[in-house]
Amino acid sequence: MMPASPLPSSVEELATPCVLIDLDVLERNVADMQARAHAAGVKLRPHAKTHKSPEVGRIQIAAGASGLTLAKTSEAEVFAGLGFEDLFLGFPVYGADKARRLLALADRVRLAVGTDSAEGARSLGDVFHAAGRRLRVRLKIDCGYGRVGVPPERAVAVAREIADLPGIELEGLFTHGGQGYAARSPDEAERASRDEGRAVVEAAEAVRGAGLLALDAEVSLGSTPTARSSMTSRGATECRPGTYVYNDFSQVTLGSCRLEDCAMTILATVVSVPAADRAVLDAGSKTLSNDPLHPVPGGHGAVLGRTSRLARLSEEHGVIRVEPGESFRVGERVRVLPNHACQVSNLHDRLVAVRGGRVEGWITVAARGCVE
Amino acid sequence: MMPASPLPSSVEELATPCVLIDLDVLERNVADMQARAHAAGVKLRPHAKTHKSPEVGRIQIAAGASGLTLAKTSEAEVFAGLGFEDLFLGFPVYGADKARRLLALADRVRLAVGTDSAEGARSLGDVFHAAGRRLRVRLKIDCGYGRVGVPPERAVAVAREIADLPGIELEGLFTHGGQGYAARSPDEAERASRDEGRAVVEAAEAVRGAGLLALDAEVSLGSTPTARSSMTSRGATECRPGTYVYNDFSQVTLGSCRLEDCAMTILATVVSVPAADRAVLDAGSKTLSNDPLHPVPGGHGAVLGRTSRLARLSEEHGVIRVEPGESFRVGERVRVLPNHACQVSNLHDRLVAVRGGRVEGWITVAARGCVE
Repeated sequence: MMPASPLPSSVEELATPCVLIDLDVLERNVADMQARAHAAGVKLRPHAKTHKSPEVGRIQIAAGASGLTLAKTSEAEVFAGLGFEDLFLGFPVYGADKARRLLALADRVRLAVGTDSAEGARSLGDVFHAAGRRLRVRLKIDCGYGRVGVPPERAVAVAREIADLPGIELEGLFTHGGQGYAARSPDEAERASRDEGRAVVEAAEAVRGAGLLALDAEVSLGSTPTARSSMTSRGATECRPGTYVYNDFSQVTLGSCRLEDCAMTILATVVSVPAADRAVLDAGSKTLSNDPLHPVPGGHGAVLGRTSRLARLSEEHGVIRVEPGESFRVGERVRVLPNHACQVSNLHDRLVAVRGGRVEGWITVAARGCVE
Repeated sequence: MMPASPLPSSVEELATPCVLIDLDVLERNVADMQARAHAAGVKLRPHAKTHKSPEVGRIQIAAGASGLTLAKTSEAEVFAGLGFEDLFLGFPVYGADKARRLLALADRVRLAVGTDSAEGARSLGDVFHAAGRRLRVRLKIDCGYGRVGVPPERAVAVAREIADLPGIELEGLFTHGGQGYAARSPDEAERASRDEGRAVVEAAEAVRGAGLLALDAEVSLGSTPTARSSMTSRGATECRPGTYVYNDFSQVTLGSCRLEDCAMTILATVVSVPAADRAVLDAGSKTLSNDPLHPVPGGHGAVLGRTSRLARLSEEHGVIRVEPGESFRVGERVRVLPNHACQVSNLHDRLVAVRGGRVEGWITVAARGCVE
């Protein structure tokens, strides 16, 4: 882990590479998504995977978020330890060892976890039941992404198995239209949003009709590309976008945000210009990650103010393919807009908060690396 | 950062996902590469980017390594603080701020850094000269990889510019045949090794012929796919492979090692089996990275003992495309051979050292995340 250096007051004096977060943009993104959720009449429970940070989580809660979404048990332990009180793990957590940790967590926070099978839910419920407790779970519905979750037509059958388990309380359903990241047109994006809303709302009606869900059960959906549209689905109660807080080049190319809505950039230095068509930054995949997320034309990140793109990355090198008419010089500093903000957060212990060119402090990625 | 949990004594009791390092395999890999370097008459200066760990670095030094290779100034600060005495940064370090940190480091360790331009070397030399000191640098030669470095035919001209700079001592040349990772046949791999050796040796002869290099100057090369062959080049003095210490699925498919030479595996749990052809692990790109490195047929990692492969990753999910005739069940534990070991190390604060199914302790990734 890199020791924290003293922070200079101006961006120009920062050691490179480093990750900058523009607080004005971040605050605007938080307020905008909260206002949209308010207008749609749903709770906003942001996925904290994008920032993994108490400073950013507190801004979201202060703006009106009902709680945070996380994926892993160890992430919930970190956020519970930092004073966050309402956590949902949107991941099919499995196993008695994790259940014992969840049991300890449930003493400290309002906790719910995802599941998509009776086997998974039973592995948790048995531990809660033995302690005379019940764990809140939400059944994951697959709305067409094809990752985890049960298809809507099986929702009643699996919900019945789960609702009958000792130590388990079925508090709702949830879904995630991750296929929106593969959309290659506004039509495909709109279809992902529509499928997300329809799948989880119809499944909830069916499960409620079977007497397995309360009237006020959670019906939760959302991702940054789909949330603005899908949160207006009649019957949805909660949405869980994550990336909107920072945004990134993938979101820009997907049409989910504008360039000026991107709060995260990487400050990097040109360390080599070995050829007229090639310049190399000190920021590679250890800084930016290799994740293309939404396949972006031309590579691994945009160089702000230029048309030249990061064409390939190795761990410490970012290779720019220099477009005709552009040039870079050794020692020049540039700002890079990354393809996938969440992956960038997970590579760094701290990001640098800036406002109008001034350094304001660290953003601590407190739950970085929490994979358990 | 994830808190360190108490370590159980058996692998079966470990929380998943986690990264296992088989110490028997690691020690055999270290001894084998050291023996090859000894037989070839070159020094071995392993690239520590693969492990970033004092425990593993000490095993390499104890076996006879002459020092370690790193890339970034902040990595050298971590390793110097842990007692390592001879460090080479194989990266074109730039800037007065880095130079001041290198100056402090040069008081504590034998230090050399890479460069491929007079502008880069001058930005460091000026600071050393002002302090009445000289920084050892090595000129990077591009042997065909096309990342950083000067082509062999420009070596004399650039070496002359650098050797004339105040505060700089040109102690040698180095190269890296990274194109070996793109080899699609044994012939292409052999060509990468041959080009690596020839480019740096011929450049060194020319620079020495121009009176700019000492007779005993360093002529350094190597990567895991190319090192075994290129280290035998007449005139080479040092080789710098990194990945060999753990190996990975890319090295297996490149033919650089056998499956049984892979020391690093990921222990993961099947958390969902949503369809007959799909099973999902609790290990995604936050555990394995998205880096395909050498493009491996079928995806992002091999599931040991199965032909089914990790076909896609999201941050916390590893999606296995289940081959006909194979099946997985929720709760089952599997071992995954990652595509790129170095990237895996950089995602975790600690790896688990095992020997014959028993847990021996932590391997600390002390320089994880050091990108400055």
